[in-house]
Amino acid sequence: MYQIDLNSDMGESFGAYRLGGDEELIKYVSSTNVACGYHAGDPMVMEKVVKMAKERHVAVGAHPGYPDLMGFGRRKMTLDPKETKNIIKYQVGALMAFTQSYGMKLQHVAPHGALGNLCQYDRETSRAICEAVYEIDPSIMIFYCAGAVLGEEAEKIGLKTASEIFVDRAYMDDLSLVPRKMEGSMITDEEFAIERSIRMVKEGKVTALSGKELEIRGDTLCVHGDGPKAFDFVKRIKESFAQEGIIIKNFQ
Amino acid sequence: MYQIDLNSDMGESFGAYRLGGDEELIKYVSSTNVACGYHAGDPMVMEKVVKMAKERHVAVGAHPGYPDLMGFGRRKMTLDPKETKNIIKYQVGALMAFTQSYGMKLQHVAPHGALGNLCQYDRETSRAICEAVYEIDPSIMIFYCAGAVLGEEAEKIGLKTASEIFVDRAYMDDLSLVPRKMEGSMITDEEFAIERSIRMVKEGKVTALSGKELEIRGDTLCVHGDGPKAFDFVKRIKESFAQEGIIIKNFQ
Amino acid sequence: MYQIDLNSDMGESFGAYRLGGDEELIKYVSSTNVACGYHAGDPMVMEKVVKMAKERHVAVGAHPGYPDLMGFGRRKMTLDPKETKNIIKYQVGALMAFTQSYGMKLQHVAPHGALGNLCQYDRETSRAICEAVYEIDPSIMIFYCAGAVLGEEAEKIGLKTASEIFVDRAYMDDLSLVPRKMEGSMITDEEFAIERSIRMVKEGKVTALSGKELEIRGDTLCVHGDGPKAFDFVKRIKESFAQEGIIIKNFQ
Amino acid sequence: MYQIDLNSDMGESFGAYRLGGDEELIKYVSSTNVACGYHAGDPMVMEKVVKMAKERHVAVGAHPGYPDLMGFGRRKMTLDPKETKNIIKYQVGALMAFTQSYGMKLQHVAPHGALGNLCQYDRETSRAICEAVYEIDPSIMIFYCAGAVLGEEAEKIGLKTASEIFVDRAYMDDLSLVPRKMEGSMITDEEFAIERSIRMVKEGKVTALSGKELEIRGDTLCVHGDGPKAFDFVKRIKESFAQEGIIIKNFQ
Repeated sequence: MYQIDLNSDMGESFGAYRLGGDEELIKYVSSTNVACGYHAGDPMVMEKVVKMAKERHVAVGAHPGYPDLMGFGRRKMTLDPKETKNIIKYQVGALMAFTQSYGMKLQHVAPHGALGNLCQYDRETSRAICEAVYEIDPSIMIFYCAGAVLGEEAEKIGLKTASEIFVDRAYMDDLSLVPRKMEGSMITDEEFAIERSIRMVKEGKVTALSGKELEIRGDTLCVHGDGPKAFDFVKRIKESFAQEGIIIKNFQ
Repeated sequence: MYQIDLNSDMGESFGAYRLGGDEELIKYVSSTNVACGYHAGDPMVMEKVVKMAKERHVAVGAHPGYPDLMGFGRRKMTLDPKETKNIIKYQVGALMAFTQSYGMKLQHVAPHGALGNLCQYDRETSRAICEAVYEIDPSIMIFYCAGAVLGEEAEKIGLKTASEIFVDRAYMDDLSLVPRKMEGSMITDEEFAIERSIRMVKEGKVTALSGKELEIRGDTLCVHGDGPKAFDFVKRIKESFAQEGIIIKNFQ
Repeated sequence: MYQIDLNSDMGESFGAYRLGGDEELIKYVSSTNVACGYHAGDPMVMEKVVKMAKERHVAVGAHPGYPDLMGFGRRKMTLDPKETKNIIKYQVGALMAFTQSYGMKLQHVAPHGALGNLCQYDRETSRAICEAVYEIDPSIMIFYCAGAVLGEEAEKIGLKTASEIFVDRAYMDDLSLVPRKMEGSMITDEEFAIERSIRMVKEGKVTALSGKELEIRGDTLCVHGDGPKAFDFVKRIKESFAQEGIIIKNFQ
Repeated sequence: MYQIDLNSDMGESFGAYRLGGDEELIKYVSSTNVACGYHAGDPMVMEKVVKMAKERHVAVGAHPGYPDLMGFGRRKMTLDPKETKNIIKYQVGALMAFTQSYGMKLQHVAPHGALGNLCQYDRETSRAICEAVYEIDPSIMIFYCAGAVLGEEAEKIGLKTASEIFVDRAYMDDLSLVPRKMEGSMITDEEFAIERSIRMVKEGKVTALSGKELEIRGDTLCVHGDGPKAFDFVKRIKESFAQEGIIIKNFQ
């Protein structure tokens, strides 16, 4: 038997602005990464997503980012490690007020956007994030992109980790994601995306954009939920996984 | 023997902007109300103040306000109760990440500025704040200005409370503070301010601006810490209280 | 022959967040009210809308609001007149950088949301807004909701004005809009909305929610552009107006 | 006869936060760089500084920065050229509302902090800034740090420029400023700072930190105004320059 967590980014709306289909997507995933008000999200949205997660038995994780709402956390900012550590604590704590209110335990922390990308190779930033999480509560997990140094730093410090793989993003030879601006970065053939996901889960292998065969560890599979088509796709993943004997389950 | 808590607002700096003399003031108080990033404060400052409080055995409370940094939370905003509840949770949670990191328990919540003023008479807003705190952790106290409905609402919901009195602010007949724009709002005679404080603590009485004698309950005394003169004043309060047999102690 | 301006709020997107169908709506209106970055809008969106307006010969106005992105400027804030004046200047100036870049003249200023509602009856706020506009450039017009004191204050100070009427909002007996929370606030029957608009333009009359006949002056008609259905509606207004001999034209 | 402009950053306060001694400093300078609300400054402060500048016949320039109030614009953010161009327009326009209100012409634009540092070598960012300024009004000058590519890009596009030199910052061999974290970055000996400034103005020469002799063009000299000591220093510069026959004069 195989087992994997299915996660998705949620709570990215802000004020009058709606983003993503949280209400629909929450029905399919086993974990959710909730934006914490810095690059996206606000207290109303955070409350709403955590409430839905509670009702659907979905595990909640924090998805902290840079303090850059205008740039949606996708623009790199040069923060020093202490700043990084403290903005992580602030955002994670803010979300924990909502999980605690619903009697839930925060499952994980997964850095967002440009901050997340930096964790692929930047040990100082990765360590700062892990220290922040460890000091708040050492039983909170770290979600890191397969191959990222964030995973190593988390384990060094004594945090549990989950290696995240992506259903629709192509890989470079070093397991980093093919940048969005490069051709072939997105897997658009749904059939192939699902087959590839199953192979990553069952065999621990994936073919890089270059054609090279790579070993990959996938503990949690990230799906995106933009547009009605996305929900059909997530539904199909769930069905295919059931047929293949892959159990979808979070870490709680 | 008499006993009272001595509190002060801190952590009101933001980024490159310095406000207040936290490093000095922390030596004299038994509790601190820490701004949480909406009307003032940022993750760096919050970390710093909580660390100092830990070292000095000072109890930490949250001082949440309106999301209005430009107005320092002093401009009234018409939020509905649900919005109020969620912005309180967000800010309190954010601060708890720092107290939890230092193995401290958050002692209390004291609403700031225009939001605090509203709690003098607005039951709906007061209840929203109390629900937010109760749902996060029912053992967190509420600090309310003597006479405010916030105190009643907190007790109704089952929260412990502390009635806050002010060393240098004059009172109206209904125990509300004389608005800053009115003449006589501030007690500028230090000798008198201290005598008056001692009377409030020992006799539970204060003379209103109108000359009327009022009953007042004071569990915690608020002092301000702007400018070097302020520190001398706080020091004198401590000395006077010692002579009068008034023990300064927080609620932890 | 009759003549009216057709306006719509635009530029309300922010960063990654999309709001409204600016690209489509710009084809139908003669004027646009552009958000200026405080309650909505950002420099990228402002540039885009002004560019489209230039290409389509649509007149550009500023739509300044409270500094409350989280509340979309719909939450009342108690600003003093000097604060109001300066936030208007800031926002209007920011937009003028874009109109000036395209060799366009800013046509008007129309306050947004809770700030706009306040202008229905608050003379101090209305005057502050008019002073701000007058000091920047006395040839900029003020758009005010029919019946609002903002119109009177603008004329007193020497600004040209346009009285704004709404195609789909019901009126109280004093010409203020029926609050959104009251039943009957929105005109949902499109046929009736158009007939009513034509009557306002040609006869200067409208039937209030109470059934009372009111006199109303309409120089500019506001249409909303949310959802694809909205565009059909705007299209039908244009067609009906053409048949009725009502020319749609801005003030430039 | 020699001539130079004396400039200083001002308007860096925000809401309740005070920074710098604008009221004092305005008495000594011939030009002021005013923060525009993104990294520092707000509409109230901008109004106040422009008003003082008008009264003192001081020329006003814009000092736009990254949208990062928490980091005071000192943290690098990776914006694309179009984003840079539009945030410059927004901020410059916002300030122009105030200069225009006082019948003043905006003299110049000088990028702040990390954005300014980037202009030392980044041609794409420099060009974006210059395009923004040129499109608003081609008669606005660009202030660039001596040696920065920003100066070249400004001239290429047809903007007038002023090369900025610093009274108290040491230089590297390539005319870039010695980073603040390196030893010797600040000139602390006031006598020497003034002598060095006079030499830069009169001979166009400066000795780098390495001891190497560099040619330097100085059209405008930047002084800082933090603390009461700073004002004495600025005063002494003015006196020394008078004795040396150096006229202090802006470009208007």
